[in-house]
Amino acid sequence: MSDFIPIPIQDSHRLINAGNVILLSVQSQDKRTVTTVAWHMPVSNQPKLISCALANKRYGLELIKESGCFCINIPEFTLIDAVVFCGTYSGRKVDKCSEAHLTAVPCSTIHGFFIDECVAHIECELYSMFEAGDHTIVVGNVTGAMGKNHLFTPDGVIDINKVQLIHHLGGTHFGILKSQGG
Amino acid sequence: MSDFIPIPIQDSHRLINAGNVILLSVQSQDKRTVTTVAWHMPVSNQPKLISCALANKRYGLELIKESGCFCINIPEFTLIDAVVFCGTYSGRKVDKCSEAHLTAVPCSTIHGFFIDECVAHIECELYSMFEAGDHTIVVGNVTGAMGKNHLFTPDGVIDINKVQLIHHLGGTHFGILKSQGG
Repeated sequence: MSDFIPIPIQDSHRLINAGNVILLSVQSQDKRTVTTVAWHMPVSNQPKLISCALANKRYGLELIKESGCFCINIPEFTLIDAVVFCGTYSGRKVDKCSEAHLTAVPCSTIHGFFIDECVAHIECELYSMFEAGDHTIVVGNVTGAMGKNHLFTPDGVIDINKVQLIHHLGGTHFGILKSQGG
Repeated sequence: MSDFIPIPIQDSHRLINAGNVILLSVQSQDKRTVTTVAWHMPVSNQPKLISCALANKRYGLELIKESGCFCINIPEFTLIDAVVFCGTYSGRKVDKCSEAHLTAVPCSTIHGFFIDECVAHIECELYSMFEAGDHTIVVGNVTGAMGKNHLFTPDGVIDINKVQLIHHLGGTHFGILKSQGG
């Protein structure tokens, strides 16, 4: 199993702050799914809240309503095939972990699992949710976060010289970040 | 005045999809402000909704509640000084447009203004809002969007070889996107 170390909850929003695609993993009893999500944002510092917008028909949303929790996983560009796969197929029909060769490991603070191949993950309890058009905004209260040792710079931000996060531009177009100023 | 062309509303969320920092401009009668926002996301396709999370004490949030509308402006990296300035000072105390040398131009579909120096802007009517922790999630219904001619590739995504959007990593650390994959 990989060498994750704890990330302080007050820094956990940095994992999604720059707009990188996430893999959302959810489990309800014996049902589970992994969903690619590009629409998400940090929401609050005290308490630490983060949110994402999920299409109302999404299986992942259905499982969050049942379980009351979810996990946000941070993939690097090496996982692009799994990211595209998990954004294309529904977890109602296939087990995405096995199909996309992702390893599910039990979370430590919620009922659910994280993806071992991702560079970090954030465990969340459902805080609130509300419909907006054809999506539902899901807000999670961060209960724990873990990341690989090389993830952050000494300044506490993601080291984009070492970690290539995935940014969705639209369709099958993606970008990665490079340093500028600072 | 700059050479903006209309962006189809159904494509407008592409302007914020990859997590780039925005400048939110709001006007209520003779009061106005410009606020730097890193916490935002698209929310819905039909209708086209986008959202941001604003600290409950923010002057921009107060003006949105009064006016019922706001404008999201997309700055390039050349505007980094203005972006940092507008994220540091409160519009209660200074007129940020004049202090940051930003040109306010009246919007065409809402009561408000856009920033001429930005590469694109999205005009929004307030759709809904709800508190979450120390921030409020503001959801806007897109009423119009305009951008510079060179902004999008023929595939309808932001041309990151020509446009350097600003990604906030934390503190005063920023990144820009480069192409990866296809």
